[in-house]
Amino acid sequence: MAAKFFPTAQDAENAFYEAIETADLEAMMAVWAEDEEIVCVHPGGPRLAGAEQVRESWRAIFAGGPGMRIRPVRRVAITGMMVAVHSVHEAITVPGEPRPQPPVVATNVYVRTASGWRMIVHHASPAPGAPQPDPVAPSGPKILH
Amino acid sequence: MAAKFFPTAQDAENAFYEAIETADLEAMMAVWAEDEEIVCVHPGGPRLAGAEQVRESWRAIFAGGPGMRIRPVRRVAITGMMVAVHSVHEAITVPGEPRPQPPVVATNVYVRTASGWRMIVHHASPAPGAPQPDPVAPSGPKILH
Repeated sequence: MAAKFFPTAQDAENAFYEAIETADLEAMMAVWAEDEEIVCVHPGGPRLAGAEQVRESWRAIFAGGPGMRIRPVRRVAITGMMVAVHSVHEAITVPGEPRPQPPVVATNVYVRTASGWRMIVHHASPAPGAPQPDPVAPSGPKILH
Repeated sequence: MAAKFFPTAQDAENAFYEAIETADLEAMMAVWAEDEEIVCVHPGGPRLAGAEQVRESWRAIFAGGPGMRIRPVRRVAITGMMVAVHSVHEAITVPGEPRPQPPVVATNVYVRTASGWRMIVHHASPAPGAPQPDPVAPSGPKILH
């Protein structure tokens, strides 16, 4: 497979969310920077650092195959010459489940490399404000800061 | 008060955590960039965008006065000429509470401005792996991606 080249951070972001929807591990890892320290935090999960941990996490997530629909919305973008930071809400739906999934807020950081724009950080966490799937579930962690 | 000047992103980060410990709103806001879109996500909270929302959130958090001890540990830093991204675990203790607080993972993004390095993004979220303060609490949100 030819290496992907993303001319803009937005192109890399589009490929990132498409890789999630298609559960395509190689397409996912093609979005990430190769020569940098990379960091990934899945919602409610631990911090993963380095290509090996990040790849293994996506492999596990994609093991069930595609099925999720995920759209980044309400984007706030801070774009520099070499680094771009995107804050998005991820609107997630799962076919066959009538209720929307709880919203997720994500910080995505991209760097411009010799191979185009690549992701170096994906930090996603549950956001409040959606219907709770479990009415007895607590409303969320205490806000400490 | 003379404007603060942070020669490095690390200086800005040190000031950020010191402002939390001292519950000093002006010191906190002096860390943030003034001319940029800024984004702040507190653990379990919504995304806040813009100086007004960010300031109001810290005002509310600091209303109870100082008392929390917070130390950024296990830092992974990605440092460029104009932008620095720090991933840290925040080790939080509250005097008088014997059990440590649940860990928090944070992504902090800084930009170099004419006024030194300033924060543009703070995204903090609960991380798994600590003693649960409530034994009947669920282990955390389902990992969707």
